[in-house]
Amino acid sequence: MSDKYDANRDRVLQVAAELFAKSGYHGTGIADLGTAVGLGRGALYHYIGSKEAVLYEISSRQLAQMNTVADELALSEADPEKRLRGLARALMRNIAEHRAEWTVFFREYHALTDERRDRIIVERERYESHWRNALEQGIRDGHFRVLPRLMVKGLLGMFNYSYLWITPAGAETPEEIADEFLDAVIIGMRA
Amino acid sequence: MSDKYDANRDRVLQVAAELFAKSGYHGTGIADLGTAVGLGRGALYHYIGSKEAVLYEISSRQLAQMNTVADELALSEADPEKRLRGLARALMRNIAEHRAEWTVFFREYHALTDERRDRIIVERERYESHWRNALEQGIRDGHFRVLPRLMVKGLLGMFNYSYLWITPAGAETPEEIADEFLDAVIIGMRA
Repeated sequence: MSDKYDANRDRVLQVAAELFAKSGYHGTGIADLGTAVGLGRGALYHYIGSKEAVLYEISSRQLAQMNTVADELALSEADPEKRLRGLARALMRNIAEHRAEWTVFFREYHALTDERRDRIIVERERYESHWRNALEQGIRDGHFRVLPRLMVKGLLGMFNYSYLWITPAGAETPEEIADEFLDAVIIGMRA
Repeated sequence: MSDKYDANRDRVLQVAAELFAKSGYHGTGIADLGTAVGLGRGALYHYIGSKEAVLYEISSRQLAQMNTVADELALSEADPEKRLRGLARALMRNIAEHRAEWTVFFREYHALTDERRDRIIVERERYESHWRNALEQGIRDGHFRVLPRLMVKGLLGMFNYSYLWITPAGAETPEEIADEFLDAVIIGMRA
């Protein structure tokens, strides 16, 4: 497909994310989306296929980016603490810049059905496993103390919950906030 | 109202929380709720008034309990670290026992309108201020180091995010998990 097609599609997804975040997935009709982007029903379907396909795109896209970042860090950064820092900074930055998408992800992904839902769950678990791997490697290395099995959930919660409050233009950068959170928790995790 | 009325109403709210958590607020009709609890439309309205009133009850009830616990701790527990521990344990226990209600709270409270929505926001901010007060008192006392302004968001995220994964019958009690999370983060907060 052409660059113009991709650009239009990105715009439709961006507007859809904002509408879904504001009024909910079930509370937003395809007609509302068409009006907001200035496209008729036919043109709109040319870009998106179905409303559920839009929800899937919105929910999967940022998660896929975070998995790409995590895959790269797993290869490039051997130190588990530095890898966690890289994961935390990238996640906070992404949530700050795509707050509508993450809001839709956390609130609405369960409205997906069948294979789309399954794929999101698999990707979310894959992402969590990157964080878990860093913790477990740190424990094996003797860098971290033996940590509770659920520690990865607490850590992720610190960062994921930011979809409710973070602003990209706040007094601190997302990376600074990520560092502050990680600094507080990492001292208590070290061996 | 009678005990029987209250018991029936509680049951309607419990079933509604489970339906809303499973299918979403917009995806659940009053007729679905009536079928699930075995009540006709008229009897149902006798207990709940409107679908939005149900969402408000579900969203506000656990939060109100947590504010009651926090008010009591603010009076009874002068040590800021012990107060945080009390807040964290009570929250984790409540989320574990009322996971459907917290799922509805986090995913759906924004569907509330006007005064109901405003009241939830006020109560949520009041709850957060209890955590913030404990942190700020600890900093003033010299018990905690000077912490980032957003630390309270990171802390709450660790616990709130548990609505996605906690089970009351897990290998550890909610209080043990709360202690583990707080133990990890509190060492890095101490002066």
